[in-house]
Amino acid sequence: MSRKLTESIFLPALKNPALDALHDGAILSLPPGRVAFTTDSYVIDPIFFPGGDIGSLAVHGTVNDLAMCGARPLHLSAGFIIEEGLPLADLRRIVASMAQAAAVAGVTVVTGDTKVVDRGKGDQIFINTAGIGVVPEGIEISPTRARPGDVVLVSGEIAVHGIAILSVRQGLQFETELRSDSASLHDLVGAALDVAGTHLHVLRDPTRGGVASALNEIAASANVSIELEERSIPVNEAVQGACELLGFDPLYVANEGKCLAIVAPSHAKAVLEAWRRHPLGRDAAIIGQVREEPRGRLVLHTRIGARRVVDMLSGEQLPRIC
Amino acid sequence: MSRKLTESIFLPALKNPALDALHDGAILSLPPGRVAFTTDSYVIDPIFFPGGDIGSLAVHGTVNDLAMCGARPLHLSAGFIIEEGLPLADLRRIVASMAQAAAVAGVTVVTGDTKVVDRGKGDQIFINTAGIGVVPEGIEISPTRARPGDVVLVSGEIAVHGIAILSVRQGLQFETELRSDSASLHDLVGAALDVAGTHLHVLRDPTRGGVASALNEIAASANVSIELEERSIPVNEAVQGACELLGFDPLYVANEGKCLAIVAPSHAKAVLEAWRRHPLGRDAAIIGQVREEPRGRLVLHTRIGARRVVDMLSGEQLPRIC
Repeated sequence: MSRKLTESIFLPALKNPALDALHDGAILSLPPGRVAFTTDSYVIDPIFFPGGDIGSLAVHGTVNDLAMCGARPLHLSAGFIIEEGLPLADLRRIVASMAQAAAVAGVTVVTGDTKVVDRGKGDQIFINTAGIGVVPEGIEISPTRARPGDVVLVSGEIAVHGIAILSVRQGLQFETELRSDSASLHDLVGAALDVAGTHLHVLRDPTRGGVASALNEIAASANVSIELEERSIPVNEAVQGACELLGFDPLYVANEGKCLAIVAPSHAKAVLEAWRRHPLGRDAAIIGQVREEPRGRLVLHTRIGARRVVDMLSGEQLPRIC
Repeated sequence: MSRKLTESIFLPALKNPALDALHDGAILSLPPGRVAFTTDSYVIDPIFFPGGDIGSLAVHGTVNDLAMCGARPLHLSAGFIIEEGLPLADLRRIVASMAQAAAVAGVTVVTGDTKVVDRGKGDQIFINTAGIGVVPEGIEISPTRARPGDVVLVSGEIAVHGIAILSVRQGLQFETELRSDSASLHDLVGAALDVAGTHLHVLRDPTRGGVASALNEIAASANVSIELEERSIPVNEAVQGACELLGFDPLYVANEGKCLAIVAPSHAKAVLEAWRRHPLGRDAAIIGQVREEPRGRLVLHTRIGARRVVDMLSGEQLPRIC
């Protein structure tokens, strides 16, 4: 059955010479540079949602993890765990969506695997994608590089993906449909690297756990403090409303098409402008700054002038959001 | 919860600088050569079995896929999909077993991901490993390189993994316990490459679908015929007995620590001798030959002197065997 799926669905949709060889693995000639390697499993529920599906998400997510290392994403692997009974039409639609997302991101799916599990031993479909990319000479992106004085940017409105998924799950209706922001960010990253080069210190896509978790992790890695201005953080009205209704803090809600950057102050404005010229960065904003103290902490200046420490989220706010 | 698992279980067991960086991906400096890239998801049931567990299997399987490309295995990613309720002690044991298998194979787990799904939406634990390795200059292993006159070797007794797993599932008792042959084959492959170099044309580990499926695929890829001598194929007595009892053909039963090689006739004996000197190849044997006709077919000379075409297996003989 795996072989039939491979021949009838995966190969035709994802066609490329490495995959077509049907070897145990793909043999690749990579451009020079350090190799970035990353993996993510996608278990999102529902598998189809406004703005994407588990297939496009599995491509975007892994492309973005590579981009956040400063790498040019090149090749993906795809491992499918399919629950018996998944309609073939759904699988075809998911694979077509992966193929399209891969084409847009300029990556090829070069190797794959399919396992089928009994009904009740999975949930329709889980997808793992691993990715490899190449980090050009001279690029040095790492969470440890955040340093006091650096400026924190976000590429657009936060919390959209999480609220879009939750709306579908809960059957919530809004005046305008909320669509996931799921997208490949490599080009947006490229635009920032073009103008800032080594002055671009940290990149991170704030997926599970949202902006607050991502910045907490960076503050801990670099042993610095990060200060956010609440009023500068772009949140769209529908998302804000949904968050209030549901009791969520948008800072903790997942994004799938937004990027945080921590940049030397000399180059922050150049990155902001480059992003605002980019279709995925039109709502980019400077949202905060890196400071020395309190080390390892994320601090929020609230709209009403208070300062509060924003902790890591404990417990999962939104399960199976990616 | 994922973060807690990462900090309390994954990082301590799998410790290495790339993983410790806790970045979105690992940044690696690879030795020169083409890069091999492969992935497999492991959904084996039961997750603990005689001779291994899902953790060691997930390392061996992906290390072997790299080795079958002629690559030196270097780095793995690990994606865990954990069903709520999996005992932490089981997870610890699985991760420890991955760590040990990785150490033996000389590979590091450099990047990972954990997802937790509700009870009843998974089955204890699924693991995806992707792997990267480097193919040394001058090595050219590919299923398309099988050519008429080449000799077919197997590194030892076949069908052991599949029958071991099935015995546990069915509660069968044998005089001697059947243990899976799950093992990393990169060193055995190295021994063959050392003596045969470019005269080693094809490598394949006959996992799901067994020796018959692997050789059928190779015959199709290279557009040649492969002829096997049934009497030369090493099958241990207990496995043979179990196959008869259960109505399985050992040619279709999964292996996890055996390797097929297709070698130029000038170097077949050298590979056989090198393998027999290796602890994982003591029962290695020459089991057949590549011919021109009938193209794309696997043909078996049976013990009683008959010739029969051995087709691809249709339908899954043993589900969730890896």
